Amino acid sequence: MEEEMKKPLILVTNDDGIDAKGILALIEMVRPLGEVVVMAPFHANSGMSHAITVKVPIRYKKIREEENLTVYGCNGTPVDCVKLANSELLSRKPDILVSGINHGSNASISIMYSGTMGAVIEGCVNGIQSVGFSLLDYASDADFSQIIDHGRKIVQNTLENGLPEFTCLNVNFPAIKREEIKGVKVCRQAKGTWKEEFDKRTDPRRGEYFWLAGYFENNENGSVDTDEWALAKNYISVVPVEIDFTAYEHMDYFKKWSYDI
Amino acid sequence: MEEEMKKPLILVTNDDGIDAKGILALIEMVRPLGEVVVMAPFHANSGMSHAITVKVPIRYKKIREEENLTVYGCNGTPVDCVKLANSELLSRKPDILVSGINHGSNASISIMYSGTMGAVIEGCVNGIQSVGFSLLDYASDADFSQIIDHGRKIVQNTLENGLPEFTCLNVNFPAIKREEIKGVKVCRQAKGTWKEEFDKRTDPRRGEYFWLAGYFENNENGSVDTDEWALAKNYISVVPVEIDFTAYEHMDYFKKWSYDI
Repeated sequence: MEEEMKKPLILVTNDDGIDAKGILALIEMVRPLGEVVVMAPFHANSGMSHAITVKVPIRYKKIREEENLTVYGCNGTPVDCVKLANSELLSRKPDILVSGINHGSNASISIMYSGTMGAVIEGCVNGIQSVGFSLLDYASDADFSQIIDHGRKIVQNTLENGLPEFTCLNVNFPAIKREEIKGVKVCRQAKGTWKEEFDKRTDPRRGEYFWLAGYFENNENGSVDTDEWALAKNYISVVPVEIDFTAYEHMDYFKKWSYDI
Repeated sequence: MEEEMKKPLILVTNDDGIDAKGILALIEMVRPLGEVVVMAPFHANSGMSHAITVKVPIRYKKIREEENLTVYGCNGTPVDCVKLANSELLSRKPDILVSGINHGSNASISIMYSGTMGAVIEGCVNGIQSVGFSLLDYASDADFSQIIDHGRKIVQNTLENGLPEFTCLNVNFPAIKREEIKGVKVCRQAKGTWKEEFDKRTDPRRGEYFWLAGYFENNENGSVDTDEWALAKNYISVVPVEIDFTAYEHMDYFKKWSYDI
């Protein structure tokens, strides 16, 4: 009975760092729904993917505490944040983990590079219902206010209906006004690549160095069931994600190879 | 005609760093098969997953050059190495990318955390045939000599038969004598998790800090078609890998949710 009365325990993290506008919007999104614990990187961790910290020790500290909200920062990656919160901080398994709201898209292949989705996948693998949110605006002052209600509805759905085992969600919002959003599309991950264009420069000591740059290329512009398509058409994209890389359809092909030496 | 005469161009990388014993074994494995270009991190990048470097510039330098072998080192992650080699270094697309040989297993869920497989997936997404190799021995002086012929056979298969589009390979070797290896099993990724146990310590200034530790737990000990099973039974495991996280079997479930706000 006592258990039933407990508010949902909501773990919040991100990869843009504890001070990012996106995580403040995410806290606002989920705060009415339960007890919120935030464990997020002190600084921006974009592009950290599923990286873990093994070379330096991890430290964390409490930053602030309000009613039903405790905020911690840590020097690790988003995945470290999830591991640390679960192992060292929380007295029970969270009812949901939410990550983001990322400043910039994590649709299509960007899920691979994303620290936001790294944290979500880490939660999922550990049996926690996990949802990642991203807004298609890289600006540090991006306007998240237009999509908070839509995000909260997805979190409510997750808490009420549950996610299938080993399945998490990758939610991307178009960066448009609330009234322009056409709705939600459940879709598949578009096939795409980042085309690299390194920015080559010379330092004051004549050393050559490179900044990673590049642009995203959607390899299936004709398809109408992908996240990239949905977002381009002003829908919120919801991709159900599972963590099994096996290419089942090609198993037989590889079984036919000769492996004798 | 001239094109046909060209030796295969083989790009080699890893996450244990340019001086690791595993990458020297990998160079030995592929050197008889073509022209080898190595671009690998200067230092160990274990646990870097699919991370990319965005906060600091990337630099690389040529380390040595022999007949049909050129070795470069770089300060980036394994994924950076692949991007940099393809964008700035190689005059044409490599015929194959090989990564490793990792010191330690990348079977099951470890593929998510692995820099070795991060590089492989990066190659695959960019249309390069890519194969990752790992030996189930974390020791820096692990014995790779027992499995070089087996690995070379898989590389030969790849060069001769080709990999299906957007498919790469995750190859793991048991750490046993050559004569004890029972053969190769094409299998699926086992469901498993890393159970975290942080090692909590106190520094000389009384600050608390944590080292990430933990152990792998196979969640399906009963299954006989997984990489973990194959390796435990003294087989080499070959998992065909594709980069689509979509949980197709659950699309309908999520379409039934109400998204109205």
